[in-house]
Amino acid sequence: MLFWPEVERIVDRALAEDLALGDPTTQALVPPDLQGQGSLLVKAPGVLAGMEVAALVFHRVDPGAELEVLVRDGAAVQPGTVTGVVKGRVASLLQAERTALNLLTRLSGIATETSRYVQAVAGTGCTIVDTRKTAPGLRSLDKYAVRVGGGRNHRYHLGDGILIKDNHLQALKLQGLSLAQGIARLRAEAHHLLKIEVEVKDLGEARQAVAAGAEAIMLDNMGLEEMARVVRKFKGKVLIEASGGINLSNVRQVAETGVDLISVGALTHSPRALDISLELES
Amino acid sequence: MLFWPEVERIVDRALAEDLALGDPTTQALVPPDLQGQGSLLVKAPGVLAGMEVAALVFHRVDPGAELEVLVRDGAAVQPGTVTGVVKGRVASLLQAERTALNLLTRLSGIATETSRYVQAVAGTGCTIVDTRKTAPGLRSLDKYAVRVGGGRNHRYHLGDGILIKDNHLQALKLQGLSLAQGIARLRAEAHHLLKIEVEVKDLGEARQAVAAGAEAIMLDNMGLEEMARVVRKFKGKVLIEASGGINLSNVRQVAETGVDLISVGALTHSPRALDISLELES
Amino acid sequence: MLFWPEVERIVDRALAEDLALGDPTTQALVPPDLQGQGSLLVKAPGVLAGMEVAALVFHRVDPGAELEVLVRDGAAVQPGTVTGVVKGRVASLLQAERTALNLLTRLSGIATETSRYVQAVAGTGCTIVDTRKTAPGLRSLDKYAVRVGGGRNHRYHLGDGILIKDNHLQALKLQGLSLAQGIARLRAEAHHLLKIEVEVKDLGEARQAVAAGAEAIMLDNMGLEEMARVVRKFKGKVLIEASGGINLSNVRQVAETGVDLISVGALTHSPRALDISLELES
Amino acid sequence: MLFWPEVERIVDRALAEDLALGDPTTQALVPPDLQGQGSLLVKAPGVLAGMEVAALVFHRVDPGAELEVLVRDGAAVQPGTVTGVVKGRVASLLQAERTALNLLTRLSGIATETSRYVQAVAGTGCTIVDTRKTAPGLRSLDKYAVRVGGGRNHRYHLGDGILIKDNHLQALKLQGLSLAQGIARLRAEAHHLLKIEVEVKDLGEARQAVAAGAEAIMLDNMGLEEMARVVRKFKGKVLIEASGGINLSNVRQVAETGVDLISVGALTHSPRALDISLELES
Amino acid sequence: MLFWPEVERIVDRALAEDLALGDPTTQALVPPDLQGQGSLLVKAPGVLAGMEVAALVFHRVDPGAELEVLVRDGAAVQPGTVTGVVKGRVASLLQAERTALNLLTRLSGIATETSRYVQAVAGTGCTIVDTRKTAPGLRSLDKYAVRVGGGRNHRYHLGDGILIKDNHLQALKLQGLSLAQGIARLRAEAHHLLKIEVEVKDLGEARQAVAAGAEAIMLDNMGLEEMARVVRKFKGKVLIEASGGINLSNVRQVAETGVDLISVGALTHSPRALDISLELES
Amino acid sequence: MLFWPEVERIVDRALAEDLALGDPTTQALVPPDLQGQGSLLVKAPGVLAGMEVAALVFHRVDPGAELEVLVRDGAAVQPGTVTGVVKGRVASLLQAERTALNLLTRLSGIATETSRYVQAVAGTGCTIVDTRKTAPGLRSLDKYAVRVGGGRNHRYHLGDGILIKDNHLQALKLQGLSLAQGIARLRAEAHHLLKIEVEVKDLGEARQAVAAGAEAIMLDNMGLEEMARVVRKFKGKVLIEASGGINLSNVRQVAETGVDLISVGALTHSPRALDISLELES
Repeated sequence: MLFWPEVERIVDRALAEDLALGDPTTQALVPPDLQGQGSLLVKAPGVLAGMEVAALVFHRVDPGAELEVLVRDGAAVQPGTVTGVVKGRVASLLQAERTALNLLTRLSGIATETSRYVQAVAGTGCTIVDTRKTAPGLRSLDKYAVRVGGGRNHRYHLGDGILIKDNHLQALKLQGLSLAQGIARLRAEAHHLLKIEVEVKDLGEARQAVAAGAEAIMLDNMGLEEMARVVRKFKGKVLIEASGGINLSNVRQVAETGVDLISVGALTHSPRALDISLELES
Repeated sequence: MLFWPEVERIVDRALAEDLALGDPTTQALVPPDLQGQGSLLVKAPGVLAGMEVAALVFHRVDPGAELEVLVRDGAAVQPGTVTGVVKGRVASLLQAERTALNLLTRLSGIATETSRYVQAVAGTGCTIVDTRKTAPGLRSLDKYAVRVGGGRNHRYHLGDGILIKDNHLQALKLQGLSLAQGIARLRAEAHHLLKIEVEVKDLGEARQAVAAGAEAIMLDNMGLEEMARVVRKFKGKVLIEASGGINLSNVRQVAETGVDLISVGALTHSPRALDISLELES
Repeated sequence: MLFWPEVERIVDRALAEDLALGDPTTQALVPPDLQGQGSLLVKAPGVLAGMEVAALVFHRVDPGAELEVLVRDGAAVQPGTVTGVVKGRVASLLQAERTALNLLTRLSGIATETSRYVQAVAGTGCTIVDTRKTAPGLRSLDKYAVRVGGGRNHRYHLGDGILIKDNHLQALKLQGLSLAQGIARLRAEAHHLLKIEVEVKDLGEARQAVAAGAEAIMLDNMGLEEMARVVRKFKGKVLIEASGGINLSNVRQVAETGVDLISVGALTHSPRALDISLELES
Repeated sequence: MLFWPEVERIVDRALAEDLALGDPTTQALVPPDLQGQGSLLVKAPGVLAGMEVAALVFHRVDPGAELEVLVRDGAAVQPGTVTGVVKGRVASLLQAERTALNLLTRLSGIATETSRYVQAVAGTGCTIVDTRKTAPGLRSLDKYAVRVGGGRNHRYHLGDGILIKDNHLQALKLQGLSLAQGIARLRAEAHHLLKIEVEVKDLGEARQAVAAGAEAIMLDNMGLEEMARVVRKFKGKVLIEASGGINLSNVRQVAETGVDLISVGALTHSPRALDISLELES
Repeated sequence: MLFWPEVERIVDRALAEDLALGDPTTQALVPPDLQGQGSLLVKAPGVLAGMEVAALVFHRVDPGAELEVLVRDGAAVQPGTVTGVVKGRVASLLQAERTALNLLTRLSGIATETSRYVQAVAGTGCTIVDTRKTAPGLRSLDKYAVRVGGGRNHRYHLGDGILIKDNHLQALKLQGLSLAQGIARLRAEAHHLLKIEVEVKDLGEARQAVAAGAEAIMLDNMGLEEMARVVRKFKGKVLIEASGGINLSNVRQVAETGVDLISVGALTHSPRALDISLELES
Repeated sequence: MLFWPEVERIVDRALAEDLALGDPTTQALVPPDLQGQGSLLVKAPGVLAGMEVAALVFHRVDPGAELEVLVRDGAAVQPGTVTGVVKGRVASLLQAERTALNLLTRLSGIATETSRYVQAVAGTGCTIVDTRKTAPGLRSLDKYAVRVGGGRNHRYHLGDGILIKDNHLQALKLQGLSLAQGIARLRAEAHHLLKIEVEVKDLGEARQAVAAGAEAIMLDNMGLEEMARVVRKFKGKVLIEASGGINLSNVRQVAETGVDLISVGALTHSPRALDISLELES
């Protein structure tokens, strides 16, 4: 689910960057009423995301330009797949092209990368989740693309989940408070539908966190064996999330320790754009 | 040079995504007046970009938070380099952390990748330039980071340079116009300080473009030998840009053909974030 | 904790409504350089909220106007209490007055009403929480005032907590799905730090909800005896929230049933402004 | 008359507060294409206001959702009245529900309260007017609701009417100027279509104000007998407005003194929301 | 009086148009830390307006750039007058220059033109007023400049004064209503501090308007003799405004008929910019 | 080509200035459902510009109001020409009227003035161009109107063309750099599609500029004979632009010197609005 007024703001902002000050090339060379059409052509294998967003880009440039979606978000695509056909004034298509592709290729890149992690852990029961490491201004779309790719979102922002990190633990210590006392404060002050997750570095800290009332624990950069020990002890009692230093070559091993969730910052902080182009015919 | 009202808009938008709806964890656990400081710690080798932008993030969350910049944008950094120290209320530092890092690691990632390409072509006289394939809403920062990394910008948007692509050529044909006639139109209509670049696929098209009056030509996905032929023919007469399918493993070969410019979309469409973290002490 | 860029937007918007098109009365009658000061004078007993917000209003009208806060948010105030003194150009004080008071009296009204409910249930261990029934555009401030008044927030928006209402239950039925199946879907799709609350109308529905995995239940417009039955059965197993038709005259009875939380829409949808005025001396 | 671009801004802002970050409950439980409809059901007697605004909320969430207005703004409604039927995707209806109701119940609450005052003074020829004590950011809607309830607006902001209050009088004194000199300045500087009202505390001040050229006088917190004296003296010569400390139990007495206008801040600073709910069927 | 948040919006918008996408010339040629100063030099006689606005432009580009105002708004200036000196980084001064001058020269142009009309009617007791024919987006500044030039504002927008034009009269006729009935409606519905002005074409219509209760009449494109007749009849009873077809060559004659006000659209719809430049020394 | 999201922002902003706070006159006197139509009637000879913009104004006030464009932008119009007919609710037409006309008359004024210059140089081969001296916030429309009037745009903003002015030359001197060194820097740093223009005061400076690599030279306030000398020397080698002190009475002489371009600031800094009115029938 996307909130369209927000997507519209993102699209208008992006168009303003590229188009607001005119396009002399097209203006001089393309007759304003020349009609044409273009195909969104995939050039690398991946998972598609952002077709409706791309459709909005064409629509904002020219309400008369219409993108017919042939392949829906979430589908696996191959080089040669035509995911949609856009029809309208050629000038409009040329002016919307770059902005539409910048969005579509980024989102498809995120979905594609996510799906690789999801496939890598297939059958383990482990879930791939994202982080707050998103492109500034694009969080809603970046997180949408993770879901399209088969991942699940972690908390959206600082306010919709409680995560006690080492800096918070340190602040507790400075106040002479135990973790349990900190969690008691959170239960008294934060709203009652938020669960509490605590970052831990080893089994000992995990024990303390669970004893103090954590409902989830985040194993931060923990070794595989230590993870396995934590899982043996707490699986099913609290949610167990692995985080830090996880990539495609080690994600399966991490998943096989039995953790419930693996969070991967790279899904959104370093996605490779999926190569998609607009092939125009006029 | 960055236009600060625009950077402020980007920062406020990003903060709103992460922080606008509160941070119950910090609010419950960190005393509001607890002062502390944190170090921006680099964890991977690269080129730094975005320190002033990060400083603005801390400042917008809390005017009392001050980032002392120890290393300036453009410097090569190593794992262990501390690029700056931010001081202020611990709660404010925790709340600004993610947004500041999301910007700093993206921009440093772009600068780092750019510098790799720049080094790869060192000594050839060839310039690495970016494209309009930037993250939607972040073009001004993305292009700034390319410059910080030693690259140069291509045109910023559709309006500040003329690039006749195949779709424009096709539109000319449909009107029964030659490229020369198209360029004549552009000279009559576009403003007089914009140069005209034409996309070409081989030496034949390059000849036509130059004959028609192009001041720069973009060799689109051309083979190395064909590039070399074009260079021999037109070097010094028009600017020659290579584009398409160029990566770190082949960029030097392309540069050695003698082209003036190489544009690389991946600099901004698929940068890997440079790993930088905030280490707090309170 | 308030996110100041958001508060600034609210303040600027409010000032624009009142002042953007000038103030001919003050302009003609008050010399621009006449300095003066004014006291924020409370005229009815209550709980103060919004002093920093009011300070921002004066500051936005005139950076030279300074509000010295004498009484902090959360304090009980009486008729005659002076909560702050603002100094600056008389013209600026007059122009900021209405906007500052509109914010301060609304927020103090919410805090005051909240504190009445909190006092009414004192000693029962029950917590008063708000709802999403806030003034459009002012949610962040309205919810802040509830906290100032000693209440706690319920979820902030549709995204930071899961509440299955009767309409959702009906949708499940239409799909031939049980509540347990619905909750399983939520566990698979929503992020893992959100708890699930289910609206129930009687003990039977409460049983079903708890059996299906609800972590909290909302007793919707339930009679006192039925509430007591639900509490006897589930207290300590799930969080129990009472909601609907609760006011100052019956809230203690509801609290004495042993429910954990009572949500009161009237705190924010129908607060009475606390009477506070600005008394100027020049 | 409402200015729709402004209403659209209010609606989008309110939706962003509630919905921008998603609605996991609905997303997981309600099939996206499930169609349904809902009735806006009144639960307390009052005067309806805001139906077109509510319609816009549904439309902004989903252009396919349509609210059929059965009862128009200004109508008296009773418990059980269905004021409109909205049809569309169930998910969209659930997501727009709270925002639509927050607007509709506030505006209807204002209209209802206004109509009580209007009825209380029926037959006296006295007019009920509002003040600038509106919810920040909602002035245009709050003032619209007053009109719907049968009241009339006072000036909209500081710029569209001249009201000389005691602070302005004091500023005049400090400059050694009489009220007549102040009014002369206003006639020279303010635009010529604005009338001048002067706040007065007793008959003596009223005499001075009228002698100085006031076109309206505002009797500030004046006793009933003093008001009657002022009315006997000046009725028909200047407009006479009563203000301060007026509520439903004394408004008729005030009106019967013969004042032309009674301004009531509580209409907009402390309205009770009219209870209206959305009853969905799917 | 200017509302600074609004001026800031105008300035930021204007800067974004000119500067947001960089200034390669200055960036390449001017060392970023080179300090310098510049003088605002008047090149034609006129009345100065907009110095504080210009100061804000420099400040927004670079908080370190400071404009010292030597001559204040409203002063008569001559070729060679230096109205202010701005100091700061040369690069910043160059980048703010055009935007600051575009505002300063427009506003001074309006003030200058206004002062010409004001001088032309000097001694007649007639007041020069503006209209709503302002540059879109700049009304607050345009109207400020008229006041600086010695004129007075007419109503600011459609809402702060009542002006019954021929189209409204026609609408009344279509409804079978007399002007008096229309005015009665306005007295019942519009707020009580707005005066009612009626557009009239000759003495007959003026009689009807005054009889119907108009408090001001606007003589629309009336001949001098007819104006004089209207003045003889109604001077002192209602305000009399002349409008339409009035320019510098006939404005004194119009004023000498005895009308109270003359409105001149050209003040703001067709002002000639006053020539002012920035002379830099570095 | 206009970028419609930007035009929409300009229109909404302008409407907000005029209409956001209501129109009591129309509201009281014109029945909301009264349909009518109006003609856009030209009252002075000129060139039309802004019809589509005007259409948008009516549409934003009331989606049911439709402007049928009878005469297109760029056409020469005469007193009496009806350029379009707008149909819809009379109240909506009255409320949109002023804003639509403020835009249409300004843009047509710019187009008209531009066409006068263009005609004055007809046959000389010289092109009339604008400057950055536009109304703040309206640059995109002002520059559009210049094109409609037969002129051509100069650079749009500081970033899409390189113009080395005397202040830049002075900065070079301070650094001990020659103009050629400055141009070398620009070639290394600015993007490769921007041409470099240098401001010169006489033939000597022109020689230096061309020798240093300028691709265009701007003759700043140069005498006709000196211009002619420069033209004889450099025509065809670099673009030659005349600027400064050029008006309708001397523009032909300047053009006849053989310069390629003449830039005229007055086109946009001091245009006279073209008199166009809306004649309503209901």
